[in-house]
Amino acid sequence: MTIDLEELYKDLHSHPELSFQETRTAGIAAGYLEELGFTVHRNIGKTGVVGVLDNGPGPAVMLRADMDGLPVKEATGLEYASTAMGVDHEGKDMPVMHACGHDVHVTCLVGAVEVLAAQRDEWQGTLIAVFQPAEEWGGGAETMVADGLYDTVPKPDVVLGQHVAPFPAGWFGVRPGVTMASADSLNITLHGRGGHGSRPETTVDPVLMAAATTVRLQGIVSRELAASDSAVVTVGQIHSGTKNNIIPETATLGLSVRSFSDATRDKILGSIERIAQGEATASGAPKEPEIHFEEHFPLTVNDAAATARVSAAFTAKFGETQIIDPGPVSGSEDVGALAKAAGAPLVFWFLGGAEPSLFKEWATTGRLPEDIPSNHSPYFAPIIQPTLARGTEALVTAAREFLADES
Amino acid sequence: MTIDLEELYKDLHSHPELSFQETRTAGIAAGYLEELGFTVHRNIGKTGVVGVLDNGPGPAVMLRADMDGLPVKEATGLEYASTAMGVDHEGKDMPVMHACGHDVHVTCLVGAVEVLAAQRDEWQGTLIAVFQPAEEWGGGAETMVADGLYDTVPKPDVVLGQHVAPFPAGWFGVRPGVTMASADSLNITLHGRGGHGSRPETTVDPVLMAAATTVRLQGIVSRELAASDSAVVTVGQIHSGTKNNIIPETATLGLSVRSFSDATRDKILGSIERIAQGEATASGAPKEPEIHFEEHFPLTVNDAAATARVSAAFTAKFGETQIIDPGPVSGSEDVGALAKAAGAPLVFWFLGGAEPSLFKEWATTGRLPEDIPSNHSPYFAPIIQPTLARGTEALVTAAREFLADES
Amino acid sequence: MTIDLEELYKDLHSHPELSFQETRTAGIAAGYLEELGFTVHRNIGKTGVVGVLDNGPGPAVMLRADMDGLPVKEATGLEYASTAMGVDHEGKDMPVMHACGHDVHVTCLVGAVEVLAAQRDEWQGTLIAVFQPAEEWGGGAETMVADGLYDTVPKPDVVLGQHVAPFPAGWFGVRPGVTMASADSLNITLHGRGGHGSRPETTVDPVLMAAATTVRLQGIVSRELAASDSAVVTVGQIHSGTKNNIIPETATLGLSVRSFSDATRDKILGSIERIAQGEATASGAPKEPEIHFEEHFPLTVNDAAATARVSAAFTAKFGETQIIDPGPVSGSEDVGALAKAAGAPLVFWFLGGAEPSLFKEWATTGRLPEDIPSNHSPYFAPIIQPTLARGTEALVTAAREFLADES
Amino acid sequence: MTIDLEELYKDLHSHPELSFQETRTAGIAAGYLEELGFTVHRNIGKTGVVGVLDNGPGPAVMLRADMDGLPVKEATGLEYASTAMGVDHEGKDMPVMHACGHDVHVTCLVGAVEVLAAQRDEWQGTLIAVFQPAEEWGGGAETMVADGLYDTVPKPDVVLGQHVAPFPAGWFGVRPGVTMASADSLNITLHGRGGHGSRPETTVDPVLMAAATTVRLQGIVSRELAASDSAVVTVGQIHSGTKNNIIPETATLGLSVRSFSDATRDKILGSIERIAQGEATASGAPKEPEIHFEEHFPLTVNDAAATARVSAAFTAKFGETQIIDPGPVSGSEDVGALAKAAGAPLVFWFLGGAEPSLFKEWATTGRLPEDIPSNHSPYFAPIIQPTLARGTEALVTAAREFLADES
Repeated sequence: MTIDLEELYKDLHSHPELSFQETRTAGIAAGYLEELGFTVHRNIGKTGVVGVLDNGPGPAVMLRADMDGLPVKEATGLEYASTAMGVDHEGKDMPVMHACGHDVHVTCLVGAVEVLAAQRDEWQGTLIAVFQPAEEWGGGAETMVADGLYDTVPKPDVVLGQHVAPFPAGWFGVRPGVTMASADSLNITLHGRGGHGSRPETTVDPVLMAAATTVRLQGIVSRELAASDSAVVTVGQIHSGTKNNIIPETATLGLSVRSFSDATRDKILGSIERIAQGEATASGAPKEPEIHFEEHFPLTVNDAAATARVSAAFTAKFGETQIIDPGPVSGSEDVGALAKAAGAPLVFWFLGGAEPSLFKEWATTGRLPEDIPSNHSPYFAPIIQPTLARGTEALVTAAREFLADES
Repeated sequence: MTIDLEELYKDLHSHPELSFQETRTAGIAAGYLEELGFTVHRNIGKTGVVGVLDNGPGPAVMLRADMDGLPVKEATGLEYASTAMGVDHEGKDMPVMHACGHDVHVTCLVGAVEVLAAQRDEWQGTLIAVFQPAEEWGGGAETMVADGLYDTVPKPDVVLGQHVAPFPAGWFGVRPGVTMASADSLNITLHGRGGHGSRPETTVDPVLMAAATTVRLQGIVSRELAASDSAVVTVGQIHSGTKNNIIPETATLGLSVRSFSDATRDKILGSIERIAQGEATASGAPKEPEIHFEEHFPLTVNDAAATARVSAAFTAKFGETQIIDPGPVSGSEDVGALAKAAGAPLVFWFLGGAEPSLFKEWATTGRLPEDIPSNHSPYFAPIIQPTLARGTEALVTAAREFLADES
Repeated sequence: MTIDLEELYKDLHSHPELSFQETRTAGIAAGYLEELGFTVHRNIGKTGVVGVLDNGPGPAVMLRADMDGLPVKEATGLEYASTAMGVDHEGKDMPVMHACGHDVHVTCLVGAVEVLAAQRDEWQGTLIAVFQPAEEWGGGAETMVADGLYDTVPKPDVVLGQHVAPFPAGWFGVRPGVTMASADSLNITLHGRGGHGSRPETTVDPVLMAAATTVRLQGIVSRELAASDSAVVTVGQIHSGTKNNIIPETATLGLSVRSFSDATRDKILGSIERIAQGEATASGAPKEPEIHFEEHFPLTVNDAAATARVSAAFTAKFGETQIIDPGPVSGSEDVGALAKAAGAPLVFWFLGGAEPSLFKEWATTGRLPEDIPSNHSPYFAPIIQPTLARGTEALVTAAREFLADES
Repeated sequence: MTIDLEELYKDLHSHPELSFQETRTAGIAAGYLEELGFTVHRNIGKTGVVGVLDNGPGPAVMLRADMDGLPVKEATGLEYASTAMGVDHEGKDMPVMHACGHDVHVTCLVGAVEVLAAQRDEWQGTLIAVFQPAEEWGGGAETMVADGLYDTVPKPDVVLGQHVAPFPAGWFGVRPGVTMASADSLNITLHGRGGHGSRPETTVDPVLMAAATTVRLQGIVSRELAASDSAVVTVGQIHSGTKNNIIPETATLGLSVRSFSDATRDKILGSIERIAQGEATASGAPKEPEIHFEEHFPLTVNDAAATARVSAAFTAKFGETQIIDPGPVSGSEDVGALAKAAGAPLVFWFLGGAEPSLFKEWATTGRLPEDIPSNHSPYFAPIIQPTLARGTEALVTAAREFLADES
């Protein structure tokens, strides 16, 4: 058996599934794992799949890929673009797209387990392949743990994973310590008083209240944090109203907050609450704003020693110039929950997926190309190669670093 | 037959229907018209119903009630409150409520045709009762005309109608000339560039663009129009985003504009376009905003002579103190289309529907009560009596003013 | 003696003086009054001048002109434009301009007293000419009264005055009842916490607080008042900061509010306070905003009967087409204080001062010319004739209407 | 002679002088230099003073202190607080305060030259003490160079300097490479159209335009830069209007921009221009905004090798725990111009000046105390000791590191 990874990737890309609904993807992954001789556990954490290849005494190494797509309407124009629709957790119909590249992660992990299974005479130990659901909603890894992951499979000695990102394909970003931000998702409901669009004087307009709040929230990053204190406050959703000539009762804002320390996180969350209250006061709101916290991703922290080993192995394999330290990245991850529950070190790296020729100016001027669509964009489209090949090799290389050599 | 108007009203209130979907309401109206001996024409303008009572030579008088509810979630707490759901013209599930009192209009018109039918020995002429769909979307009256209304029924010599409003029940607002504003509904699509919520620097944030535009639009009324130039610019809808950690591609604003002259209307629409463009520029938008005009209601202009007759008849019937001139009202109506197509004068008045005791302070201080929910509010709840009785009497009184006395 | 009014006007225009500093203007006015045989009282209300011509038994008629210029840098490019500098009441150097046309008022009153003095055989009674200081700061008329005006000169039976305005020269605007708005001037001090421009995180930025407050204040007129409820909320001053790289401690806003009823005025002032507090909260201000009220102009209300007489006299003199009702005007005046203190009726009218040919489109489309600079603009420039001639004739005509005919 | 540094400090603090007006301070410095046997050059770069102590063959070391105060009204309540007034470069009267601690710098340099002069038997070489004017306006160092500094005194082999900062007194912040941001100061003039405060419809309100622009500028840091890309955009001044009831013609914004790379600086300056244009468009401005660049401070870059020597010397002298790397600091400096013109390496460090006990929580939680007033705050008040002692010792220690030992 030799899996055509490019075909698999295009197939997965055309069939994205929303969080905790990744049944088709999980089925494909489970199928390959079974063909390759892994013991397969399905439906761990709703739609999660875990395969275990027990290959004699030695360290247990966990390789993890996340599977879920996003409610984004794909606009890449690719031949294999998604036209899929899904139903989100609130019951709304939504277009779905692999706008965060989890299809790359699944494909590379399938490729890696095929290689490692084929190499089973060369190493000893236990290989654990995790296809995780719902990374985007922040609950997938924890749900797998809560659903008895480590009652089912051995606790690993190291957890390894990767994420595709818009820097040159062929490159890797590896960093010890804090590598990704903590993230909080929260919703704010602002209360106005509804009425006829022609008689604003009888109402408290929640649309203006929400707009003013959104504008004011920019001041947290621009005025309340030090220049050196990295953080992001994004209002990713704003919704109010059902008809142009009705002033609605309420408005909702959906925020995503990134920070790199508890002190900064506390400050930002306090400022959000203060600003929402101030703007409600300024509008004469009949009721205080309500803030609901949805998800929380902790900081993703790479183990220093284990990361040094992976970094050295990558340097040896791919060459020094291909390995960069991206600094702390403002994105977030829940892979850390798998390591934390096992008491194991984590190494999580970034896999370049963008056309390298776009970065020519960077080398000379330090100016990054602006047109490369980022993760979550409807135009996000990693180039297929060398991305898939490198992603597969990276998983194999890192796993072999920790598995015992058979000699 | 004596119709229980209060029961009818509560039934209609519990069963609101969205624009052009008023089949249950239309069926009830048509049933009564048939029982009362009217010739009934159904499905004129999709769901419209017209009844004609030919009562010998004499003037033709049209009485008109509109039938549609609104996509509002009722919050009145009334025993007979609506819990109905509907599907709006974009296919979205929506709660539905008679938040604009069209149930009052239908009930009073049913009451009035019963009275006038019972009085048929006292008058001569032709009575035309119109139960019109889709006033809220601005197309109902024109759709009836376009669908051959005046090929089916005689052109009237006068068109009469009324609207319930939050001033004291028992009172009427009557005014010659411009009585209601022109209205325009328009949608603005603002184009950003989507991406990951943690990497705003790769995006152009349409949520901030939409918020800043909303805030800036307030300056039209506050800074660009004279204090004496009445107008309203309402942003009734703002929508952007599907997930807190995705920066979306676009945002949409839904606006409702009211004005009392073409010059002001032109100025406002020009300013909206200018502000949208300015804010798109400020955001670095990759594409100009798109503005789509949805509906346009013209000015509602009462005929001076016919209005003087109605005003005098109301004064004689209800007493001088009950009749006020409300000034030009910022709401809008499409009833004028029925009059215009017939070349007939229009008289359209307001029917008080609020608890009179709330207005005590008004008499002495000129301060209007602030807590009375206006039309389109989820709390809008006219008191049943004397509203229904007065609304019925008003239609009868005005109709009899124009019908010939049988003597 | 025949005064060259055009020369006088140009001289006054070139030599504007700030409020309560009108010594040169007052001296010129007093000089003419003395030459014409008036008993002259100087320095009533600091720089005010009053002349009395006792011409036998009969009614006492007061004609009033205000004298002060404004801290505006003239930009008209006129040959006789002002280059004057003054020191305002806070001690700041300011350019000064007759940007509100008080030079027209002074000139026309000088012209009118010359004519009326020359006609003294034709009428009986007492003519009182008031050259009032400090209309712009709202204290001039009250200061004259407080300084014993009516201990010095007889209380008049009617107070007459006029204001030049940007509508066609040769026309008059006359209106019984509420003719000008009440006005309030107030200052808001917003408290932040200062610091280094590079370290906003150690500060509470009052510049952003003031900007957000200014933007939010627009919502009062756009959202909190009915379309039919005329009012203006102007932020005429915003000041914060001494150096680009210092974040200041405080910011100040200077507001001017216009309204036509106490209920609306109360609502606006309450909303201003609420918004300032809300924005201070949103900024995390260390201290509540402070609001200081500076001046208050009451409504200017013309006496109905006396206004009808003036209106009839103007119609007879100038022709019906030249007399319009401008509706309530959003500007404000303190002339009413002179009438109120005397218990006398007030008639105050508007004198057209703009080039009539600019209004051609108005007649056919209702569209007012947009380019005519309004009062207080650095480009404000009434045309000299027929403005001065008409303004003089109007004062004479109105005065003669109330003075007894000698016969 | 033993100078009482605490007395000197209090005296300087009570007598701050604005940029290029530091004549009293310069006189005091020159007096001490002369007493200590330095060759003194006055009025280099207007008010600058340089003293040279030629102590035989060996390296030339330049020690630099800046002298100017700021237009800030002191609010520390200190016994020796400033009540001084000055006239800024636009001719405005301004309170003056040593709100940036240049009085500390001058005092410590006086102390250091006294010590080094006393130690002249222990070292060889040339000591150059620079008392520089006008650091705050960014032109002082360059003005000294342009005025022939290096025609007058020898080019140094190293340039050393320090800045007091709000971290624990007794500590030092030392960092190789980029140590302080580049800074740009720019002014934006926004053009509206003036008029009467009661008639906004005849105007284009520049106050609202400036406020909206200020609010929108926050989006540069919050949305257009990566979380990891440190930068500050401060609007330190906003000014418009002369009287509450006049809508002014123009408004001005004064900005200070900090960045750590040319790419970021270019992006920010481009965004500022774009936002100003967008907001001018949104307001319907009659004229494009004008942007004037005032000052530019380049990045302050410490020489790696020389900094390592200073760092080692400080560690030996003060102990390892007292030396921290503060990361790139968002403030800016012009000291680099002295090094650049000499082709010499620069070492510039931060001197802690805040009460150490305030930082207890920091050690355990990473939370910095929020109440310590930063530089440029009206409350900025370094504690006198150990600040002055340590600042003196630091200059001596660093200078001796580079001067030749006499042995």
